[in-house]
Amino acid sequence: MQPMQHQMMGYDRAITMFSPDGRLLQVEYAKKTVRLGNTAIGMVCKDGVLLVTDKRIVSDLVVPEAIEKIWQVDDHIMVTAAGILSDARILVERAQEKATGYRVTYDSPVDVLSVVKDIANVKQFCTQSGGLRPFGVSLLIAGADESGLKLFQTDPTGLFYQYRAVVIGEGETEVEGILQKEYKEGLTIEEGLKVCVNALRKSIDGKEFNAERIDAAVITEKKRVMERIPKERIAKLLR
Amino acid sequence: MQPMQHQMMGYDRAITMFSPDGRLLQVEYAKKTVRLGNTAIGMVCKDGVLLVTDKRIVSDLVVPEAIEKIWQVDDHIMVTAAGILSDARILVERAQEKATGYRVTYDSPVDVLSVVKDIANVKQFCTQSGGLRPFGVSLLIAGADESGLKLFQTDPTGLFYQYRAVVIGEGETEVEGILQKEYKEGLTIEEGLKVCVNALRKSIDGKEFNAERIDAAVITEKKRVMERIPKERIAKLLR
Amino acid sequence: MQPMQHQMMGYDRAITMFSPDGRLLQVEYAKKTVRLGNTAIGMVCKDGVLLVTDKRIVSDLVVPEAIEKIWQVDDHIMVTAAGILSDARILVERAQEKATGYRVTYDSPVDVLSVVKDIANVKQFCTQSGGLRPFGVSLLIAGADESGLKLFQTDPTGLFYQYRAVVIGEGETEVEGILQKEYKEGLTIEEGLKVCVNALRKSIDGKEFNAERIDAAVITEKKRVMERIPKERIAKLLR
Amino acid sequence: MQPMQHQMMGYDRAITMFSPDGRLLQVEYAKKTVRLGNTAIGMVCKDGVLLVTDKRIVSDLVVPEAIEKIWQVDDHIMVTAAGILSDARILVERAQEKATGYRVTYDSPVDVLSVVKDIANVKQFCTQSGGLRPFGVSLLIAGADESGLKLFQTDPTGLFYQYRAVVIGEGETEVEGILQKEYKEGLTIEEGLKVCVNALRKSIDGKEFNAERIDAAVITEKKRVMERIPKERIAKLLR
Amino acid sequence: MQPMQHQMMGYDRAITMFSPDGRLLQVEYAKKTVRLGNTAIGMVCKDGVLLVTDKRIVSDLVVPEAIEKIWQVDDHIMVTAAGILSDARILVERAQEKATGYRVTYDSPVDVLSVVKDIANVKQFCTQSGGLRPFGVSLLIAGADESGLKLFQTDPTGLFYQYRAVVIGEGETEVEGILQKEYKEGLTIEEGLKVCVNALRKSIDGKEFNAERIDAAVITEKKRVMERIPKERIAKLLR
Amino acid sequence: MQPMQHQMMGYDRAITMFSPDGRLLQVEYAKKTVRLGNTAIGMVCKDGVLLVTDKRIVSDLVVPEAIEKIWQVDDHIMVTAAGILSDARILVERAQEKATGYRVTYDSPVDVLSVVKDIANVKQFCTQSGGLRPFGVSLLIAGADESGLKLFQTDPTGLFYQYRAVVIGEGETEVEGILQKEYKEGLTIEEGLKVCVNALRKSIDGKEFNAERIDAAVITEKKRVMERIPKERIAKLLR
Amino acid sequence: MQPMQHQMMGYDRAITMFSPDGRLLQVEYAKKTVRLGNTAIGMVCKDGVLLVTDKRIVSDLVVPEAIEKIWQVDDHIMVTAAGILSDARILVERAQEKATGYRVTYDSPVDVLSVVKDIANVKQFCTQSGGLRPFGVSLLIAGADESGLKLFQTDPTGLFYQYRAVVIGEGETEVEGILQKEYKEGLTIEEGLKVCVNALRKSIDGKEFNAERIDAAVITEKKRVMERIPKERIAKLLR
Repeated sequence: MQPMQHQMMGYDRAITMFSPDGRLLQVEYAKKTVRLGNTAIGMVCKDGVLLVTDKRIVSDLVVPEAIEKIWQVDDHIMVTAAGILSDARILVERAQEKATGYRVTYDSPVDVLSVVKDIANVKQFCTQSGGLRPFGVSLLIAGADESGLKLFQTDPTGLFYQYRAVVIGEGETEVEGILQKEYKEGLTIEEGLKVCVNALRKSIDGKEFNAERIDAAVITEKKRVMERIPKERIAKLLR
Repeated sequence: MQPMQHQMMGYDRAITMFSPDGRLLQVEYAKKTVRLGNTAIGMVCKDGVLLVTDKRIVSDLVVPEAIEKIWQVDDHIMVTAAGILSDARILVERAQEKATGYRVTYDSPVDVLSVVKDIANVKQFCTQSGGLRPFGVSLLIAGADESGLKLFQTDPTGLFYQYRAVVIGEGETEVEGILQKEYKEGLTIEEGLKVCVNALRKSIDGKEFNAERIDAAVITEKKRVMERIPKERIAKLLR
Repeated sequence: MQPMQHQMMGYDRAITMFSPDGRLLQVEYAKKTVRLGNTAIGMVCKDGVLLVTDKRIVSDLVVPEAIEKIWQVDDHIMVTAAGILSDARILVERAQEKATGYRVTYDSPVDVLSVVKDIANVKQFCTQSGGLRPFGVSLLIAGADESGLKLFQTDPTGLFYQYRAVVIGEGETEVEGILQKEYKEGLTIEEGLKVCVNALRKSIDGKEFNAERIDAAVITEKKRVMERIPKERIAKLLR
Repeated sequence: MQPMQHQMMGYDRAITMFSPDGRLLQVEYAKKTVRLGNTAIGMVCKDGVLLVTDKRIVSDLVVPEAIEKIWQVDDHIMVTAAGILSDARILVERAQEKATGYRVTYDSPVDVLSVVKDIANVKQFCTQSGGLRPFGVSLLIAGADESGLKLFQTDPTGLFYQYRAVVIGEGETEVEGILQKEYKEGLTIEEGLKVCVNALRKSIDGKEFNAERIDAAVITEKKRVMERIPKERIAKLLR
Repeated sequence: MQPMQHQMMGYDRAITMFSPDGRLLQVEYAKKTVRLGNTAIGMVCKDGVLLVTDKRIVSDLVVPEAIEKIWQVDDHIMVTAAGILSDARILVERAQEKATGYRVTYDSPVDVLSVVKDIANVKQFCTQSGGLRPFGVSLLIAGADESGLKLFQTDPTGLFYQYRAVVIGEGETEVEGILQKEYKEGLTIEEGLKVCVNALRKSIDGKEFNAERIDAAVITEKKRVMERIPKERIAKLLR
Repeated sequence: MQPMQHQMMGYDRAITMFSPDGRLLQVEYAKKTVRLGNTAIGMVCKDGVLLVTDKRIVSDLVVPEAIEKIWQVDDHIMVTAAGILSDARILVERAQEKATGYRVTYDSPVDVLSVVKDIANVKQFCTQSGGLRPFGVSLLIAGADESGLKLFQTDPTGLFYQYRAVVIGEGETEVEGILQKEYKEGLTIEEGLKVCVNALRKSIDGKEFNAERIDAAVITEKKRVMERIPKERIAKLLR
Repeated sequence: MQPMQHQMMGYDRAITMFSPDGRLLQVEYAKKTVRLGNTAIGMVCKDGVLLVTDKRIVSDLVVPEAIEKIWQVDDHIMVTAAGILSDARILVERAQEKATGYRVTYDSPVDVLSVVKDIANVKQFCTQSGGLRPFGVSLLIAGADESGLKLFQTDPTGLFYQYRAVVIGEGETEVEGILQKEYKEGLTIEEGLKVCVNALRKSIDGKEFNAERIDAAVITEKKRVMERIPKERIAKLLR
């Protein structure tokens, strides 16, 4: 049977339904939402982990400094997203609560993987229980903990993978090609940032591109604290 | 596949469903409701933040003073809306309770962003859980707190952005053009009010337009208290 | 797309659904129910607020005195309705409980606006939550409190407006024309009652019309207590 | 659009749905159930209130004395019904509990109107909440309390009216005509009973009619206690 | 409109739906289930009440003594059924619990009518609440209490009638004819048993019929205890 | 109307629906599941009760000893099943808990019939409540208690019968014929086992049949403890 | 009727529905999901039990060491999966909690079968209750406890079998053939690992295959602790 026929027969009208070929179509559609989202890149460098994302400013009258596409979960953990951003916010707030709860209970920072697993579980739940829809968002979760620098990606299914460098959103195909060519394990933060910013520049239409549009942040292995990268530093890389 | 086909196949019959191209059609329809609503403008001026809105008085026999399209959430926070106004009222009452609760608990005024996030979370929830519909309303939330003058817009998705000047409702396209030309960062409240009122005049059919129709309020950075702007002051601007 | 097509496609089969043009069709149908209901008029006069309504006596064998189409919510607040009267009764009983609760808690009469908002919130809730239908009734709520004489109308959406004079139900269009011509702000109760009764007479088919059919009540600013107007007084006006 | 079309489009498949012309079709169908039920007549006489009803004995082997179509709610209140009799029983038992509860709490008999309102509220609830169907029954509720003799009718909508004389069920049209001609306010119980029994005789096919079929009861103003009328007394009237 | 059309349009797909002519089709289908069930007869005799039923033994290898189609609810109350027997068992167990509870609370046997009403209420509930189906079973409930010998029948609607003699199940039409001819009020248990057994013999195909197939029990007015009638006694009647 | 038409019209899409001829189609389909299951035989012998079942080993690599198709509920009660085996396991675990609970509470072994009734009630419940499906499994429950040797069969409806010998599953028709010819009441366990094993051999395709495939167990009246029959003893019978 | 017709008629749209031939189609589709998953092999050897699985690394930029397709449930129990891996994770976390709970309560390691049964019960539940979908994953559960080395497989139905050697996922057919030829009971871990790795190599396209892709772990009977097998040891086997 053809996919179109499966659509005609309604296998894609509920998350609680498999199609005859064993697929969860609603979850696959949620992944398409992600591919329509703004491009976001993560990269593990020699001395820190980077998130770089396109802010996609919709209007001149928006306050660009106020658009955060990179959220702080805890001192040492940050998140960016592609897809439905209000969905992302719900997950980020949940992660923040988890991290705070952990600090209060154990008097030490939560490890990155625990946060990732908790987000992934919520996402999985929304692919199995009726009366809900899957989260239409992929997250990049970056951090530094006892066991080093970490970079994870979770998709709408609730799957997660650990990456050295990763891209989500509309520029996915193009940027991934660039990362595979230019990413090397020993890159410094500065070198890595350059790779990311230039990859974004190539994937976004030239005329619309400028440093204002970019949100970037880093967590160094030493400080283990999220630091936003000032737009001047990005502008310099673009010259 | 064409949009029309997606409608025929029912992807737009529930908020818990993605269409094959990854869209939430019910949420998009809710946004159309907003574009059918009365025009509402927000503007950050040098010394205060303004909300100006069209009251759309339906009958001569209505008591015009009693129509409030700008609601006070707390001394220092106010809200206006475009779309289903009974939906707006539910959100405003929730915000009022949150603000009061904050004052009681912390003995200080709530910051504007917290109120915005709470409203946005409720809106997001109504785009993901079955048996509910999305809120058919966009809100402009203006206020003054420790970190300065603030103006936010939240849409039916639960997304929010901070603006310097913004318009929602039926006059959106026309007024936005005017704001982009005439808004400058250093405008006084008086100058800003003039821009807003004139923009409204242009977007509303001339014959039906008069000062009675306009609801306007301001929160100055100094006083941090919402003040309604008397209609005489608006009438003067219209001469 | 045409409205008829939206019906064919089922956008009007649930309150939890927007149509592609951003309308809530079930709520619009509920408003039609109101326009099929008996005519009810409210009017703020110089010294009191009036409700005048058509009882629509269905049978000679009904006890006409027992048909109340104007209900007392508290000493100083009364309500009439057009649409599904059993829906109205549920809302009135809720209002009565709220008013009593307020008296018990604060030892003073509730203000009219609080009662109106509470009714409007219940109505809004029934336009957003699945498994319920909207209330098929509009209410006129009249009263006298600290801040003066009040007259409100709430529709099935949960919207409310304050009026000087207002009509709901099947005679809406005709009576509204009369009110706009004949209503003036300084009318005495006696003059206002005459306007209302004559407007009803014109909107109801002459042969079927008589004083028996009319239910009228007033709350004067002085007494702040609902008083039913005896049918003799109405009969006199009809001569 | 035609009614038939509304049926084709499913507006009559749920109580939680209005049709495009503002009707609740499921509730209207429930009223048809009532019109298929056995004929039941109520009448307020000079010195008491009467209920007279057709037992519709289905088989010779049924114990006719055991068929009660008139139920006692409390000493001074009785009920009869037309429509789904198992639905009626549920409502009667609820009324009995309410009356008993009232006696226990206030040490005095409940007034008739309170019982009527409680039944009407349950009926209204079943016209608004999904997962239920409307009650397919109309009730006649007769009683004597502090404020005199009372006779009410409630329909599946949850509406109620007070009557001097009223009929429900399959003989509705024919009997109502008779009542309108023959009912006068000063009738004694004996005269009223004769009117009712003869009206039943005319509406039921002659051959099948006999005194055995009739269930009748009276509450006199003096005694305020339900008394069943012996079939001998009815038989005498039929001669 | 024709019945077939009502089926095409789905009025018979849920118990919570009336058809346009005011019928509950699902409940009517449940009654058909009863008419497919095994024949069961009840009879009030001079000195006791009888239940006689066809066991319909499906296989030679079944233990016929273990098939009980007549269940004891309490010493003085017994039940038989036609329709879905697993549905019957649920109702019987409920009745047993009610009877035991009554004995424990009041230290005296429950009256038969209370048990009947409780079963009827459960059945009615299952005709009004979504997510359930009506009970597909009719019960004959026989007993002896303070007020004499009792025999009731309850159908899937939750209706009940008291009978002198009654039959349910597939032989209904034929056996009812026999009962109407041969039942007389003064019959002894022995005479009544003969009428019942012979009626069963006529309604069941001759070749398949034998005493083994019949389950019979009696409660005498004197003893007020259910006694099973030995198959020898039945075999004697069949000679 | 034809069965096929009832399927086209959806009477078989929910357990909470009767078809117009009074059948519960979903429950009938569940019975088909049973007829697709592995063959299982039960037999009451002179001195014990036997269960013999086909293990249907799916792969050479399965550990055959680990496949239990006969489960122990308590020392003196055992169960086998045909149909969905994961459904069976849920019911068996429930029975085990019930038996343990009984021992703890009453300090004596539960009687077989109580266990059977409890399982049957759960099964009935799943044929009446929406949001569940019927259990797709029939069970044979064998045991020895105070009142002797017992063998019951329960089907997906929640019906149960006591048998002297019984078969369920794909070999039902063929094996039942054999049992009816060869079963006699005085058989010893050894003789009965031979009848069962040979009946299985005839119903299963010869080439695939061997002693490894057979699971058999016995509870003797004397010991009242389930004993698994070693495959050597079965192999001997097959020679 | 043909399968295709059953699909057209919607028997495969809910887990709570049997098709007319007694199948649960949604559960069968879930099994197809498993057959699309990565190949996973389990094997009981002389001195330990092995799990070997294909990691299916999706990108060069993924951190391969971080992909675990074999999870530790407790010291002595491990799990691998084929199908929806986020579903697997939920089940593994549940198993981990169960194992920890057991240790805390009884101060000893849980037996493997208890863990298997608990997982199987959850899976069965998701095939019977509406508003959920079946788990789209099969698990291999391997461990060593008091009663020796154990290897189980559970499918989406909630069925489980104990195996000596077993394969799930896309390579199922090919690898099963290899296992049946090459598996013998006395194999050492080293020999068994070689069989598994070579079977994987044959089932995966040669060019894409390398030691990096393979995740393998063993629990020896002696140590009863899960040990991951280093990729060097696997690489050696591939030479």
